Amino acid sequence: MINEQLLNPKSIVVVGGSDDVQKPGGKVLKNLIDGNFQGNLYVANPKLDEVQGIKSYKNPQDLPEVDCAILAIAAKFCPQTIELLAKEKNTRAFIILSAGFSEENEEGAELERQIVETVNSVGGALIGPNCVGVLNSNYNGVFTTPIPSLDPKGCDFISGSGATAVFIMESGVPKGLSFSSVYSVGNSAQMGVEEILKYMDESYDPETSSSVKLLYIENIDKPEMLLKHASSLIRKGCKIAAIKSGSSEAGSRAASSHTGALASPDVAVNALFKKAGIVRCSGREELATVASIFMHPELKGKNIAVITHAGGPAVMLTDALSNNGLDVPHIEGPKADALLEKLYAGSSVANPIDFLATGTAQQLGDIIDACENDFDNIDAMAVVFGSPGLFPVYDVYDLLDEKMKQCKKPIYPILPSVINVKDEIEHFLAKGRINFPDEVVFGDALAKVYNTPKPEAENIVMPEVDKKAIRAIIDEADNGYLAPEKIHALLDAAGIDRSKEGVIDTVEAAKEMAKEIGYPMVMKVVGPVHKSDVGGVVLNVMNEETVVAEFERLIKIQDTYAVMMCSQHSGTEVFIGAKREDKFGHMVLCGLGGIFIEVFKDVKAALAPISKDEAHEMIRGLQSYGIIKGMRGQEPVNEDKFADAVSRVAALMTVAPEIFEMDLNPLLGSKDAVVAVDARIRIEKEM
Amino acid sequence: MINEQLLNPKSIVVVGGSDDVQKPGGKVLKNLIDGNFQGNLYVANPKLDEVQGIKSYKNPQDLPEVDCAILAIAAKFCPQTIELLAKEKNTRAFIILSAGFSEENEEGAELERQIVETVNSVGGALIGPNCVGVLNSNYNGVFTTPIPSLDPKGCDFISGSGATAVFIMESGVPKGLSFSSVYSVGNSAQMGVEEILKYMDESYDPETSSSVKLLYIENIDKPEMLLKHASSLIRKGCKIAAIKSGSSEAGSRAASSHTGALASPDVAVNALFKKAGIVRCSGREELATVASIFMHPELKGKNIAVITHAGGPAVMLTDALSNNGLDVPHIEGPKADALLEKLYAGSSVANPIDFLATGTAQQLGDIIDACENDFDNIDAMAVVFGSPGLFPVYDVYDLLDEKMKQCKKPIYPILPSVINVKDEIEHFLAKGRINFPDEVVFGDALAKVYNTPKPEAENIVMPEVDKKAIRAIIDEADNGYLAPEKIHALLDAAGIDRSKEGVIDTVEAAKEMAKEIGYPMVMKVVGPVHKSDVGGVVLNVMNEETVVAEFERLIKIQDTYAVMMCSQHSGTEVFIGAKREDKFGHMVLCGLGGIFIEVFKDVKAALAPISKDEAHEMIRGLQSYGIIKGMRGQEPVNEDKFADAVSRVAALMTVAPEIFEMDLNPLLGSKDAVVAVDARIRIEKEM
Repeated sequence: MINEQLLNPKSIVVVGGSDDVQKPGGKVLKNLIDGNFQGNLYVANPKLDEVQGIKSYKNPQDLPEVDCAILAIAAKFCPQTIELLAKEKNTRAFIILSAGFSEENEEGAELERQIVETVNSVGGALIGPNCVGVLNSNYNGVFTTPIPSLDPKGCDFISGSGATAVFIMESGVPKGLSFSSVYSVGNSAQMGVEEILKYMDESYDPETSSSVKLLYIENIDKPEMLLKHASSLIRKGCKIAAIKSGSSEAGSRAASSHTGALASPDVAVNALFKKAGIVRCSGREELATVASIFMHPELKGKNIAVITHAGGPAVMLTDALSNNGLDVPHIEGPKADALLEKLYAGSSVANPIDFLATGTAQQLGDIIDACENDFDNIDAMAVVFGSPGLFPVYDVYDLLDEKMKQCKKPIYPILPSVINVKDEIEHFLAKGRINFPDEVVFGDALAKVYNTPKPEAENIVMPEVDKKAIRAIIDEADNGYLAPEKIHALLDAAGIDRSKEGVIDTVEAAKEMAKEIGYPMVMKVVGPVHKSDVGGVVLNVMNEETVVAEFERLIKIQDTYAVMMCSQHSGTEVFIGAKREDKFGHMVLCGLGGIFIEVFKDVKAALAPISKDEAHEMIRGLQSYGIIKGMRGQEPVNEDKFADAVSRVAALMTVAPEIFEMDLNPLLGSKDAVVAVDARIRIEKEM
Repeated sequence: MINEQLLNPKSIVVVGGSDDVQKPGGKVLKNLIDGNFQGNLYVANPKLDEVQGIKSYKNPQDLPEVDCAILAIAAKFCPQTIELLAKEKNTRAFIILSAGFSEENEEGAELERQIVETVNSVGGALIGPNCVGVLNSNYNGVFTTPIPSLDPKGCDFISGSGATAVFIMESGVPKGLSFSSVYSVGNSAQMGVEEILKYMDESYDPETSSSVKLLYIENIDKPEMLLKHASSLIRKGCKIAAIKSGSSEAGSRAASSHTGALASPDVAVNALFKKAGIVRCSGREELATVASIFMHPELKGKNIAVITHAGGPAVMLTDALSNNGLDVPHIEGPKADALLEKLYAGSSVANPIDFLATGTAQQLGDIIDACENDFDNIDAMAVVFGSPGLFPVYDVYDLLDEKMKQCKKPIYPILPSVINVKDEIEHFLAKGRINFPDEVVFGDALAKVYNTPKPEAENIVMPEVDKKAIRAIIDEADNGYLAPEKIHALLDAAGIDRSKEGVIDTVEAAKEMAKEIGYPMVMKVVGPVHKSDVGGVVLNVMNEETVVAEFERLIKIQDTYAVMMCSQHSGTEVFIGAKREDKFGHMVLCGLGGIFIEVFKDVKAALAPISKDEAHEMIRGLQSYGIIKGMRGQEPVNEDKFADAVSRVAALMTVAPEIFEMDLNPLLGSKDAVVAVDARIRIEKEM
């Protein structure tokens, strides 16, 4: 597990370090040297006494004690070297760059297991194998470039793919994104993305830790750990963005073919990210943009001032924001008029605030000050300022930097002229600033960040269910579909309203049953095949008098040996389902029934457990929510009872994880009740 | 209108040319000089005899004859100068960079009108005013940078905003995008985006013209002209991508505040672009990416091979393609096995084709050859190849360039390492190639291009309607809502099925009416208020015998003085609407009725006229199409009759443009018929 020797080693040995900087062993050494590693640096190389000016040991046995070892030698030599270092050189951190382990074959997997055992036996940390390394402000332990600008408050970045980590940095670095640490976990032999995130959570210090975490994940091995620590970090004030690739079926095949990883079903991934509060990104450019947004103060409302000297980008940005649920509100009133006075004729402050191609740095300052201090309906500013290439704009970008220091509201710099004022943008980035070169890419990303819900509460309050009764039924159940009476008992134990029914054959029993079921009620003969044809079905039974009269009539119908009584419901068809997803636990889905599921795929999913609040969020997120609220004079569905039922289904799953699938389809929802009228439950105990 | 003097002037004068290259007049002159303009170059400047080494005339009167004038002087001096040049110097092309015209005030608008009159009087061409200029391989007539790489087969780019044109070039140039011409139309005094596109259509020569057109539009002034020439160009083999900004309400306000332009309603813009076959983009990055795709051979099918040496980007690309309707099909069989033999152990050819971090240029060549020649289920290749920064990859990119020359299937180069192999990428772009730095941005754009429908046929076949009858009704109609009998007459003239009804008071008339209406039929008393209570409503009348019997019975009911007969329909509620959109003509909308419109906003829109084929496309594009086809054993809606009705509503609009709004809501659709049962039509003759 992560330790001080990995984070801040006093000494490092590159095992397999060489003079060939086109090879990992040579390049990682070069990066360590170029990065001015402050501790003792050694090389182990069987052929040389000195490598790149660093003392090299032909026999690792001769090495002094060393905190951290970076291995770039053939896989088969790794176990013995690690054994030596761990047992005799007090080495407690290992980064294995080499490939040829579990990703290749069973033989490699065995080597990997040996190594993990050795490292664990001394309480050491292991990164890799088959990775590009580790990078933080203490040392450049990677064999790749670019080495990004390092800053304790930059992004902490954990990647399940080394090459992808490189390409993500290549997307972020030109925008000015800095990093605090980069972990390439490779085969995740001892630590994967989840374990490193866990460490970041458990060691989080708001003063010294970075609050921005980026993840590139190809396979979520430990969803529960990811959910727990991602949401914990976010509750502590962090922001997390992640790519989970393999969202499509074809993409999953790609993931499988590449890493031997089985991709997790994507809906569950979405549900997990939503519950944790992670912003899910689909590509590198988007991830880098979201990370850049994270590097600015938090956006606390949805009202953006778009400030520009060029109309077009302002209009496109306004479109992007407005079409994604953010607002570019109208600005007016005496303070707006006062601002307009300070701008050149033809300017507009209505928002977008357009101060024309001839606008000055001074005017931009006035606009920003007004947005910061005078306009209460503004939560943030996006400043679009490029150049047609006539004159330098250092003054404008310097002003922008100054104002960003002073203002509490976030200011997002959109500097499109990456060619015309390349030098000015570099000058701006050198101050630690970030550029958003495309306003629409920025606008889409800002909306995505703003629209990502906060994580669910740490302790999810679940409705009370009768755990003992549930366990009793589940424990004695076989695999397969449960019988109706078991289903009824489970629903009752979980507190989920269902239609009630019973079969009786005496008038006294009918009266008892009627009390239990309640009115209105349906009575049907038991025995005859064509019940309606023989007059054997009675709807709308409303009182005991009718129960008695109809029982007497029905029981005399030919072939009848009993009468079934069941509660009679009406309302809108809704649906609740649950499904166990390997490792993720149970997903619970809800929506309107019938065509709304089948044609519009209008369902919302969440991972169990689900609080009633979260269930309400699911329901309100449905496209068809208008129907639930009751539109066009139709009777609404009782949203509170619907949410309660969703939350209870989730609670049932946490008590009875042996349930593989469950369908309440339909439930009938009226303004007073939501009642399950048909249910299926499948048990699968081999988990 | 565009002429030879604008396209390829033999001489140019910069009026207001100066030595100050931070001003437009100085910078445009510098650009002309730097671009090695081959003709005679003059300056008119009242103070100098020589400017930037070019002969300057203090008095324009002294100028020799000159083809083209670029004006960078105050607005008020422009009319007289243009008058002089047009009348005395045989100047036939004018580019006015100066601002201060119709975008500023009425005085400026008057100057603009004078100039247009002068230019038109000599059959000249006018670009601007208030623009950044014109650029093509003959001359750099813009005052901005960057000057992109110019190539007759590069993009023709027309922009309604000068600054935005600059920023779009700054997005495209680093990717390797080249341009054939750039027009900044400014105030579009004589020519706007539409006129220039019209010229490009009318002068199109497949041998010499570029086949790629890019548009940035803030306001569509002449939708018909745009539709006609964009679709004509695309039918000739061109590809067109466009940004129309101001898609949101707030964005439209931005457009208005900036250019005084009234933004057109966005649904109509989408309908126009769809009809024309224009790929609509929302931002600069997307436009540049789509343009880059256009620069490759056309994608003729949806099956993409994703070829990579790094798994992550391949998975993300596969996700982007698959989630947007393209396929990354499985590759297998003996030829796949043969290919796998040529790759290193651990490679995969299943698609994504992963030839590992150690893969060579030679192997990439083998993969591309196999995709080109052996794999029939592959239509195009996306090659993702970056670098962790260990060694140069010139050999790979050279191979890629060679293969791109040889292969018929498009090959898209995705080179993510913009830092690590910057030099190699520049070397690759210098060969005229283009890079897609982000695989997901590329994948989304490729899907958008592939999913944009072809333009509608030039001559849209409309259903026959009774024009004379329609015109008669419309001509005598007043503004406002039409009376029911007029609506019925219009629907009949347009051939749109409607429910039939009539009021009769004799048994003979009832028999006649029954023949006209058909069965099943409803008969109702006319007179009594509570028709049902008095037994005055008869459903399901199926034959003449019943008509006679029921008429005799009904007419005797108290207060009854006549009987209403109407056809009885059942089926699924569908909806057709039409609305006149200023300048765009009529939009016709269709969908399922009720909640499907109100909750799901599930409607498709197209501009009239609409062929039956296009109407079918609209219907098939509905989210609720499954319901129309008849799902879960429900009766389907007759799609052909629904399409026919949509097409007939559109035909009615072309004959009766005075119709401002029309609603058929609902029509009842069954497997045999689609019949309007309620209709509203509003006439608005002030157009």
